[in-house]
Amino acid sequence: MHYSNTYTRKLVEQYREISLLNKTKALLDWDLNVNLPSKASEARAAQMAQLTALTTDRWLDTKFRLLLEKVNEQKDKLNDHEKAMMRNLNWSAKYYYHVPKELIVEFSKTTSEAFMAWQQAKKDNNFKLFLRHLSKVIKLNQLVAQHLGFTDNPYDALLDQFEQGLTTRQCKTMFDHVRRELKKLLTYIQKSKYYRESLDLVGEKHHYSLKRQRQLSQFALKKMGYDLDAGHFSESPHPFTMNIHRLDVRITTWYDRHDPRPSLMATIHEAGHALYEQGISEEYDVTPLDSGVSLGIHESQSRFWENQVGRNPVFLYFLTPVLQAFFPEQLADVHEEEITRLFNLVQPSLTRVEADEVTYNLHVALRFELEEALINNKIKPNDLSEIWKVKMKEYIGVVPTTDREGVLQDVHWSYGVFGYFPTYTLGNLYAAQFTRTMKKELPLDELLRRGDLGTVLSWLRENIYQYGSLYWPDELVQRVTGEKLNASYLIDYLNHKYRAIYT
Amino acid sequence: MHYSNTYTRKLVEQYREISLLNKTKALLDWDLNVNLPSKASEARAAQMAQLTALTTDRWLDTKFRLLLEKVNEQKDKLNDHEKAMMRNLNWSAKYYYHVPKELIVEFSKTTSEAFMAWQQAKKDNNFKLFLRHLSKVIKLNQLVAQHLGFTDNPYDALLDQFEQGLTTRQCKTMFDHVRRELKKLLTYIQKSKYYRESLDLVGEKHHYSLKRQRQLSQFALKKMGYDLDAGHFSESPHPFTMNIHRLDVRITTWYDRHDPRPSLMATIHEAGHALYEQGISEEYDVTPLDSGVSLGIHESQSRFWENQVGRNPVFLYFLTPVLQAFFPEQLADVHEEEITRLFNLVQPSLTRVEADEVTYNLHVALRFELEEALINNKIKPNDLSEIWKVKMKEYIGVVPTTDREGVLQDVHWSYGVFGYFPTYTLGNLYAAQFTRTMKKELPLDELLRRGDLGTVLSWLRENIYQYGSLYWPDELVQRVTGEKLNASYLIDYLNHKYRAIYT
Repeated sequence: MHYSNTYTRKLVEQYREISLLNKTKALLDWDLNVNLPSKASEARAAQMAQLTALTTDRWLDTKFRLLLEKVNEQKDKLNDHEKAMMRNLNWSAKYYYHVPKELIVEFSKTTSEAFMAWQQAKKDNNFKLFLRHLSKVIKLNQLVAQHLGFTDNPYDALLDQFEQGLTTRQCKTMFDHVRRELKKLLTYIQKSKYYRESLDLVGEKHHYSLKRQRQLSQFALKKMGYDLDAGHFSESPHPFTMNIHRLDVRITTWYDRHDPRPSLMATIHEAGHALYEQGISEEYDVTPLDSGVSLGIHESQSRFWENQVGRNPVFLYFLTPVLQAFFPEQLADVHEEEITRLFNLVQPSLTRVEADEVTYNLHVALRFELEEALINNKIKPNDLSEIWKVKMKEYIGVVPTTDREGVLQDVHWSYGVFGYFPTYTLGNLYAAQFTRTMKKELPLDELLRRGDLGTVLSWLRENIYQYGSLYWPDELVQRVTGEKLNASYLIDYLNHKYRAIYT
Repeated sequence: MHYSNTYTRKLVEQYREISLLNKTKALLDWDLNVNLPSKASEARAAQMAQLTALTTDRWLDTKFRLLLEKVNEQKDKLNDHEKAMMRNLNWSAKYYYHVPKELIVEFSKTTSEAFMAWQQAKKDNNFKLFLRHLSKVIKLNQLVAQHLGFTDNPYDALLDQFEQGLTTRQCKTMFDHVRRELKKLLTYIQKSKYYRESLDLVGEKHHYSLKRQRQLSQFALKKMGYDLDAGHFSESPHPFTMNIHRLDVRITTWYDRHDPRPSLMATIHEAGHALYEQGISEEYDVTPLDSGVSLGIHESQSRFWENQVGRNPVFLYFLTPVLQAFFPEQLADVHEEEITRLFNLVQPSLTRVEADEVTYNLHVALRFELEEALINNKIKPNDLSEIWKVKMKEYIGVVPTTDREGVLQDVHWSYGVFGYFPTYTLGNLYAAQFTRTMKKELPLDELLRRGDLGTVLSWLRENIYQYGSLYWPDELVQRVTGEKLNASYLIDYLNHKYRAIYT
């Protein structure tokens, strides 16, 4: 990396300390989810709190702030890499410089308690146990939004934390469009003669060896080009990716002994996140450019690999003999078309994480509307359980009979995370738009039909991965696809795909 | 914990920051040995270096030093817990306050390089590749010893880092005694009609299922009372224990598909270390008393469980049907006596880690003599390869044909660790002496014969484990056994045991 002046070099050197602490925190976090013995959670929380305090101190360090200001003053003289680094540093620093330290501490304490309360509430199927904590989390988010500042809507300030520059207005337009079109598609599918409520090949009566499922996941990872010498593959209750360093990007999956799809799809999804991180330019290591740029862009990569590749009928055509080889007893006589339908079953369901490609974004739309309304005091936390049921009926056509399957299903609110859900749908939109461009430059269907994922990965590295956080989402989408984000590409893709499957 | 004054309380609070950083370092270290992808070693080294720097800064922090001095001045007014904490803090601080920071940094840099050179040298069986690095490591250790200070011998300063107060003089007396007696015992065994060079039940022709070996290890862990909810059991190239927190003590083992002994014995050995840490009083958590007091005492516990329990003929009597159940094809018809001989095979060998109970301490004696001579410039690193061979012939009666099996066998010198090996033999001595006391209070043989390890663990917790670092080794031995360390107990134990097996 070339630096235009000593200040910038020094600033990046000081940032290196923050970055290393974050990497250590990421390892602790990974370990917490994969290895931590049950009795050690309090002890681990103390280690995490120390690292958080050390990081915060470094952001608030006077020398660091002075350097940041100095370089900001000379912004025009910087090269493009430096400009991008400064933009990222300023964006990250905003939280530390605008939100008072006491509020950061209270937020952290509140969410620790909220997480425990949520666990109990979900276990007991008792929303009331979580309600008080949720109300406090919402209030603190409102305060954070006030400190961060916004023009139109306090929710904008929260959205921006996860996707740079994303606004409530944009989300509204996006979700209105997506909701309207997907409801239409869902209605069409539900009328198809191929529409099924359940499947013969998977479920309680069937047994898919976990060993074979593990081998299948490993096959997929190898095919995708996930570098195990710069990563780690294991199991956890909820699949996730942890980026500790470009050369240490770890993924996990989960296993269902009655169904081979969840493990395979989670593996492909998480490996999608990991390929992005593993593909970032080496020269950005331990700088403000060294990781995926936003949650939305990140999700576009996991969803691209999961859906545009993994659930693509032409790829499933390639995959069928592999699946048959791993599970001959169950699948030897099953036709590719049936495999395609198995992996692309559309069916309204109660929980987002189990939702298919078509209904998934309806779950996210619901969550967006509730969050925006809560942050703006348009609805009360007390009424959430009932509102949830009404909205589920309206959006997806099914109604949970318990809060466990309803308003308590997701952990994120207990983490204090508001403004994060919309990035899931953004990811789907970006993925569809990127795919459209890719198809202009690559014979994607042909490649997938013969299982050539290497060419696909090269294109993504070349066009997206290598840049890390150099370009913000808007700019990246413009550069890669030649236009702004456009929700029509997702709608077109889903209509085209599912109207073919559910003829 | 009760504090006599505010300064002491504040000092322990500040120490908590050091302790938490050390716990995080311990996790990074565990992960390095168990999970780290090969390409990430440099990235991990940067994280480790940052944590080391943060820890050093905290030791050198002016406020912390002033507090330490202030409490030292009022030493007489402290309660026993506080006195022990101050003694431990002063002992640990010595390194930071006496060794110049530049030397600490150079030491760390030199040993990083030495470790890589050692790996290459061992791989290529070329001692010359390591020689230059070893010479530098020795020089730096000599400098460290000068800075730490000593009365008789610079090697004393190094010994003290691993076993509080241990001296070269004590080691000489101990090793002279042990060597003389064990040579005699070895000669006796080699003349026995039961002496064997190899065994029929294990080795390349045999296959012991790894899955069954894993289950056997888990059986042993459960029997011993290792708490998996406050620990973690996995696999690594070299078995080890990592104490991250009393409630997070992790162990690993290794597997040999041709022999079930290495995995079982390593599991028991490491679990011995872990039981010690898991048994320390909760009230010492994250204070200078919260871990095992010295390497020698620690090793006494791993060796106690491995040898006084695991290789005890009466315990093997209990274990035989278990082994037969796990490996019926190989062991169903094998008599207890043969199992006992299998697990207690005495045979001079080239490497310490594979050595039996009788020859093990001869390996350590050799290492002690070489280290003492190197630190005092009595021998030259250049001549080590030859001297090694001569001494092996003299002490153990076998001579390595390669340096890989000779002077290069162990990693420790490349870590810069000098003065550490004698704690292995100390551990064996302590273990034998503790066992003698235990036998006065418990019917140990009866308990082991019926596999009742719970009573054994309770005795150890009551008499040793709960105290953590409250008593230094000398005091602990005196309190538990009523006398000073006495090498005769190990000699008696080994003579009694092996003269019975090799009648």
